[in-house]
Amino acid sequence: MKLYPPELEHIIDFFKKLPGIGEKSAERLALALIEMPEDFLESVSVNILNAKNVLKPCKICGHLTNNEICNICDSSYRDKNVICVIEDYKSVFAIEKAGKYQGTYHVLNGLLSPIDDINVEDINLKSLVERVENLENPELILALKSSLEGETTTLYIKKIFENKKVKISRLSYGLPMGAEIDYLDMATLDRALEDRKIISE
Amino acid sequence: MKLYPPELEHIIDFFKKLPGIGEKSAERLALALIEMPEDFLESVSVNILNAKNVLKPCKICGHLTNNEICNICDSSYRDKNVICVIEDYKSVFAIEKAGKYQGTYHVLNGLLSPIDDINVEDINLKSLVERVENLENPELILALKSSLEGETTTLYIKKIFENKKVKISRLSYGLPMGAEIDYLDMATLDRALEDRKIISE
Repeated sequence: MKLYPPELEHIIDFFKKLPGIGEKSAERLALALIEMPEDFLESVSVNILNAKNVLKPCKICGHLTNNEICNICDSSYRDKNVICVIEDYKSVFAIEKAGKYQGTYHVLNGLLSPIDDINVEDINLKSLVERVENLENPELILALKSSLEGETTTLYIKKIFENKKVKISRLSYGLPMGAEIDYLDMATLDRALEDRKIISE
Repeated sequence: MKLYPPELEHIIDFFKKLPGIGEKSAERLALALIEMPEDFLESVSVNILNAKNVLKPCKICGHLTNNEICNICDSSYRDKNVICVIEDYKSVFAIEKAGKYQGTYHVLNGLLSPIDDINVEDINLKSLVERVENLENPELILALKSSLEGETTTLYIKKIFENKKVKISRLSYGLPMGAEIDYLDMATLDRALEDRKIISE
């Protein structure tokens, strides 16, 4: 005898496909879901399909938007000369939440990884070069993760713009705020030492 | 400027309504959801509404079912004389998972709580009395939580059947498996002492 009716099993399977949701959480969420009011669930169903249909990459930067051009590229308050280069649009939300950055973005939609056969033409690099060429005083901030792929991509972008007047920086590596030195992994500690900032000399 | 497009915001709000999902998880889940293939999301939408429409309480025990009568009440392998009385159908899934119980269930859909104005007529007690009256050799196992409401309900059920030939037991209270005695709350320790089992005398 099956434990759950198949209609419930479908919902559990759906939740299990989401990141960080295991068997037990999926069951709990599915049981909570079916107790929600019917009209609410109807609007949820509509919203899910709507989001999928309406949200597309921005024609300029590749960020998620419900328009041709995203809010950030479209805003006159943003410094168009500064482009923060990121792996995917989730990073945009993270950096926007921090709330300090006033430039624009460029979503690569991946990182170079020769081992996985992800090459220059597989990620959004050509459009970055075009964008930079149209700017008077371009500055790139590379906000890519500190993995082999992230560093390969960083080096490659540095090389593309080698002989052009483009200011390029990368995010600093180091201790996460509040982290205990004792518990830090060696790679981070190494980088934090290497990137150490002189505060008096 | 809003951080998320409204279409995404709707999905985040939906996830935030589910138990144990906070702001950050809801964002992560919504972003994962919109990256799923469109035909999968279409079937999810259909399944959500279908589950809500099809799943109803069993006419006998109140457990969730896609039929008039649930699998358990309908099964000839289940002992109809034994009824496990529970607060809601989630407990059925929990007990069925344990896989030992061979009787049937009765879902009260709540517990008596005079303080919240939940009285005898507000929970599924009348149908329990009717079920018991139709049995030759009825046995009730009260599997209600060890709270004020659970114990009030346990006492009330005991009282209803006082002068009738009904065997009634409740789940034992005590140490959860694997729990460290040192970290146990006093109430559980108290109950574990009170309900102690003689193993030799």
